[in-house]
Amino acid sequence: MLNVVVTNPPRADITEVDRLAGYGVATVHEAIGRSGYLGAGLRPIQQGTRIAGTALTVVCWPGDNLMIHVAVEQAKPGDIIVVTTTSPSSDGGFGELLATSLAARGVRGLVMGAGLRDTRELRDMGFPAWTAHVSAQGTVKETPGAVNVPVVIGGQVVRPGDAIVADDDGACVVPRLDVAKAVSASAARVAKEDATRRRLAAGELSLDIYGLRPKLAGVEYLSADEYSRRAGEV
Amino acid sequence: MLNVVVTNPPRADITEVDRLAGYGVATVHEAIGRSGYLGAGLRPIQQGTRIAGTALTVVCWPGDNLMIHVAVEQAKPGDIIVVTTTSPSSDGGFGELLATSLAARGVRGLVMGAGLRDTRELRDMGFPAWTAHVSAQGTVKETPGAVNVPVVIGGQVVRPGDAIVADDDGACVVPRLDVAKAVSASAARVAKEDATRRRLAAGELSLDIYGLRPKLAGVEYLSADEYSRRAGEV
Amino acid sequence: MLNVVVTNPPRADITEVDRLAGYGVATVHEAIGRSGYLGAGLRPIQQGTRIAGTALTVVCWPGDNLMIHVAVEQAKPGDIIVVTTTSPSSDGGFGELLATSLAARGVRGLVMGAGLRDTRELRDMGFPAWTAHVSAQGTVKETPGAVNVPVVIGGQVVRPGDAIVADDDGACVVPRLDVAKAVSASAARVAKEDATRRRLAAGELSLDIYGLRPKLAGVEYLSADEYSRRAGEV
Amino acid sequence: MLNVVVTNPPRADITEVDRLAGYGVATVHEAIGRSGYLGAGLRPIQQGTRIAGTALTVVCWPGDNLMIHVAVEQAKPGDIIVVTTTSPSSDGGFGELLATSLAARGVRGLVMGAGLRDTRELRDMGFPAWTAHVSAQGTVKETPGAVNVPVVIGGQVVRPGDAIVADDDGACVVPRLDVAKAVSASAARVAKEDATRRRLAAGELSLDIYGLRPKLAGVEYLSADEYSRRAGEV
Amino acid sequence: MLNVVVTNPPRADITEVDRLAGYGVATVHEAIGRSGYLGAGLRPIQQGTRIAGTALTVVCWPGDNLMIHVAVEQAKPGDIIVVTTTSPSSDGGFGELLATSLAARGVRGLVMGAGLRDTRELRDMGFPAWTAHVSAQGTVKETPGAVNVPVVIGGQVVRPGDAIVADDDGACVVPRLDVAKAVSASAARVAKEDATRRRLAAGELSLDIYGLRPKLAGVEYLSADEYSRRAGEV
Amino acid sequence: MLNVVVTNPPRADITEVDRLAGYGVATVHEAIGRSGYLGAGLRPIQQGTRIAGTALTVVCWPGDNLMIHVAVEQAKPGDIIVVTTTSPSSDGGFGELLATSLAARGVRGLVMGAGLRDTRELRDMGFPAWTAHVSAQGTVKETPGAVNVPVVIGGQVVRPGDAIVADDDGACVVPRLDVAKAVSASAARVAKEDATRRRLAAGELSLDIYGLRPKLAGVEYLSADEYSRRAGEV
Repeated sequence: MLNVVVTNPPRADITEVDRLAGYGVATVHEAIGRSGYLGAGLRPIQQGTRIAGTALTVVCWPGDNLMIHVAVEQAKPGDIIVVTTTSPSSDGGFGELLATSLAARGVRGLVMGAGLRDTRELRDMGFPAWTAHVSAQGTVKETPGAVNVPVVIGGQVVRPGDAIVADDDGACVVPRLDVAKAVSASAARVAKEDATRRRLAAGELSLDIYGLRPKLAGVEYLSADEYSRRAGEV
Repeated sequence: MLNVVVTNPPRADITEVDRLAGYGVATVHEAIGRSGYLGAGLRPIQQGTRIAGTALTVVCWPGDNLMIHVAVEQAKPGDIIVVTTTSPSSDGGFGELLATSLAARGVRGLVMGAGLRDTRELRDMGFPAWTAHVSAQGTVKETPGAVNVPVVIGGQVVRPGDAIVADDDGACVVPRLDVAKAVSASAARVAKEDATRRRLAAGELSLDIYGLRPKLAGVEYLSADEYSRRAGEV
Repeated sequence: MLNVVVTNPPRADITEVDRLAGYGVATVHEAIGRSGYLGAGLRPIQQGTRIAGTALTVVCWPGDNLMIHVAVEQAKPGDIIVVTTTSPSSDGGFGELLATSLAARGVRGLVMGAGLRDTRELRDMGFPAWTAHVSAQGTVKETPGAVNVPVVIGGQVVRPGDAIVADDDGACVVPRLDVAKAVSASAARVAKEDATRRRLAAGELSLDIYGLRPKLAGVEYLSADEYSRRAGEV
Repeated sequence: MLNVVVTNPPRADITEVDRLAGYGVATVHEAIGRSGYLGAGLRPIQQGTRIAGTALTVVCWPGDNLMIHVAVEQAKPGDIIVVTTTSPSSDGGFGELLATSLAARGVRGLVMGAGLRDTRELRDMGFPAWTAHVSAQGTVKETPGAVNVPVVIGGQVVRPGDAIVADDDGACVVPRLDVAKAVSASAARVAKEDATRRRLAAGELSLDIYGLRPKLAGVEYLSADEYSRRAGEV
Repeated sequence: MLNVVVTNPPRADITEVDRLAGYGVATVHEAIGRSGYLGAGLRPIQQGTRIAGTALTVVCWPGDNLMIHVAVEQAKPGDIIVVTTTSPSSDGGFGELLATSLAARGVRGLVMGAGLRDTRELRDMGFPAWTAHVSAQGTVKETPGAVNVPVVIGGQVVRPGDAIVADDDGACVVPRLDVAKAVSASAARVAKEDATRRRLAAGELSLDIYGLRPKLAGVEYLSADEYSRRAGEV
Repeated sequence: MLNVVVTNPPRADITEVDRLAGYGVATVHEAIGRSGYLGAGLRPIQQGTRIAGTALTVVCWPGDNLMIHVAVEQAKPGDIIVVTTTSPSSDGGFGELLATSLAARGVRGLVMGAGLRDTRELRDMGFPAWTAHVSAQGTVKETPGAVNVPVVIGGQVVRPGDAIVADDDGACVVPRLDVAKAVSASAARVAKEDATRRRLAAGELSLDIYGLRPKLAGVEYLSADEYSRRAGEV
């Protein structure tokens, strides 16, 4: 259903979303059952930044950023704007002026399925962004699309109001109603990993800690000599 | 027309070219009618550097950098060397020695359609570069090509003597005779954007500033409840 | 021959391997006859780091990192772990916990043919990595593979115990028995390049230093006017 | 929600689905508002075949086809099996034996987001397939996933029981409850195109038929001479 | 210079262009100095067809085919329509209706830098096409571009009125004024290849026919045993 | 070790190799332990052809086919020529003249890691080929490489004299000394698959035939209603 702007969709509880920002994308993704990762194709334009927020979703026509301008009016403090296009596009449909406008409304960052530009300016003003492409190629403002409808990015469905977490490893979506659960599961995972880390640093093996040896039932351990003899080669 | 070296082609007025360096790639690209962008495939190997210069163009055979050596002799202060290959190649045909030689002649940087290497050394010596690939794979010096003929990079024609602007967003070509016009159009654009930025930062909407609302004639604004009812889904 | 773990394969002499770390990937690759480069697809997650070590090779199933856990037990101080998958995969099969475990055993870094995650944590802990993909997408620990068998990465064969050099230009393999030879050839190359660099910085041309002019036998030097007349165009 | 098999989800009315097969993918996609196209990355392994059916959806782990075996048991006559992986994979997880099993249960074809093999055998037995990759690389049967949950393929959500149409142009999904509407809209579109085709074949211009000339308000018509004078070039 | 339609640009002599169709793309490309090939990214949607014609060039906005409709009015018998987009796009902006309209005006085929659809219908009606993408994804008709200006496709400049040759190996451009020369050079090349083919079929070696042995000065011929001894393996 | 031509390397027993041609690539790949597949990137230029032969390996410089000419002299009846480049290249370094020469010496086909051209002519003359690229872009004959040394293609090592099998699913390598074993394992696999096929066609499930149900221990079977209730969505 294109050509729709949904006003004021329910958003995830921002207090819980803020807690999510304490955990990395990898942790949250594992904690919610190894799901929601927005793919290896989305890269940050800055280093060392981690944010969480609620998704303000946008569908644009390729080469056209009209609907991002429309989305600004729907923005709420705590949002992260998530932009997709109806077909693949690398054009730079987002830049420093739109970031200025969104920052004025409390938007925390951008997840861009097409391209963006003004990367230095965005870093300078502290508006973090994750994007599929960096491109100075400009866009028009001609063709309508949609705001705050479910979108697909990196093979994942993002609904308006879902929580987004993003850091140096990429970005992840947590469904709106699962955020509290994701926070507690992430906390549990971190606690467990802390314990594991200490054991690994002390020289214990994950093979033993995780009990993986039975899975190696069919694996042979050979000396280099024995391997050479079997493979018929050095 | 391969196997040609054109000596002393007309170059854009270097005073005007230097003025271009005051504007970003995105600004210049928009100012000259949204054209000349060398594509999302060319990335800088450094961050935060912006340069402008006149194009010294080179056509190499893939896996062969003979003609870059030839081009050095044709270099003039203020040039940016622009290297393409007759077919796609990722090989590292450019490194620190060639940069040393070009810097000694006043060349300001490199735009590389194939690959380069010695990235740390290039950053350390302050020779900026934009490239399609980073690769240590070496090349031979066997097969002739051309210097200072029109080349195509990122789907754009670059003629010797055209102006090149490059920064964190990529690189852009401005035709030799259009540089002065590009400078004044960029200045006008920046002035206009400064005014717009202030209004956006104060909370005005680009929908209103740019008068975009009439383009949304066919777009419906729905509440989340109304949208769910229509879509037959939460 | 999958489902094999080779214990204690012969490793390159670590003293010679340490000497290799004094030379860049581009230098070593050229010094050993322009071979061994692991391809433009492997990028570092940090900047300005150069390491050398002996290859601890791993073959994983896509989406499964069981064999990295197995490899830890085979690790020796001075190793660099080199991970491939039986078919292309971008999943993040390596992160900070595995790095902690490997660092505890003296492993110097990672060369990853699939994907990794926890990039900030890896940089913070000083565990350098080169990878084809960054992805938070998690993996399972289910399907056996192999450790310390010959693997292919970036079109090159890496045998366990071979030397690996890696820096900002990517990574390179040197066969185990060729390391001493590679060190002396790299030293010779650097000495020669130092001399060349001084001459180039002083304005001499590589065309003359390398004696390339005879290779330009069929190349015509034309003035811009003459070129235009011939090409039938301005 | 992984590790789930949904039994007997509601399916689109098969009589209406059969009617859809009378229209091409391009027609249906346009008729339902230019939506649902499963992307340019899915190509048929045969030429000249068009099918429609109801989606039997499968989520596999990369390099693992266990869940396709599970899906066979859930298949109903009229289904098209739609297979995705939790992360990108090109492995050939589908071949002639699975096709034999599915054909025995009345399944009409395959839409494969990863890879398949036995292409000649599939063509010979008349089991049509659309796929992202052809690869003989085999898979294991180890890691559970899901059957008949919503999946994403080519950036589109496919729910179990939705209608799929596929032909030489690729594949398209029509939501389960919209199939009847899609049939009538496709019929209307075809009727309109038949009339347009006759007028175009007779030499009328689409500029006039569609009333496009007002959109060219800012476009200048120039003779070649005038264009050369303006562009300053031949 | 966008937003321009050039009417009646000079076209290559159609009699000579027709002669070009007697030679394959590989032959013509070699005959004109190994230039003009439109790249490995353009593939035919049919097999066994070879055509030649004069270029009718079009620049579209991504996701928008308005200017193809404009181009129809400029078409002349003998033309091949060559369509590019201002930035990369895979959308299916061309189909059977546009082909009907162009065929009615004597256009011989399509070279498409973006995407097309209705592939079966195009094959059935005998309208040959070469394309970067097949996609049913539809386009709008909103944003102006240009007709009959120079365009870049596959890294080559195509000017209106240039000759295009296309067959199973892809497509090639011959500059308008070079067509007669290309015909005679192609004829000479074919004659020479016929003689060479007979000698090769009789068992002579191209090493001798082309006199290549001197180029192998540095190459060693080793027996397998000698090679193994040297390589220290097998 | 470049710049080497190995004469008369040991070849796999051609009688056994001929038997391999009775089995498809997928079958052989599975029969030898799911190894040796040359990757999804190699596609046939014809349909419905299956061949087997012994590998005549070639390493070329990108954009240069000199060493293919050298390889012709080393060809033996029953060989399949396997061509790689020292770095990625799409250039068309192989065409109908080389095929004529190789066919005259009993070579059975081509596996090309770069590009080829004259596809129609190759099909017409019955010289089958598998290739990474089709491109009319020509090459030079300048830079030496190697013949009959181990090469890497699609991530697999191919040694001279190894067996190659190729069909519509791609190509596969079988190590020279494993060919007889591969033939018998393929025969066994085919026999077993015939039995399985009959059972599947009769409606039995692979879940039962292969005993996969225990692997689904953690998988829940839910009705569509139950799933909706759990997922909180239709």
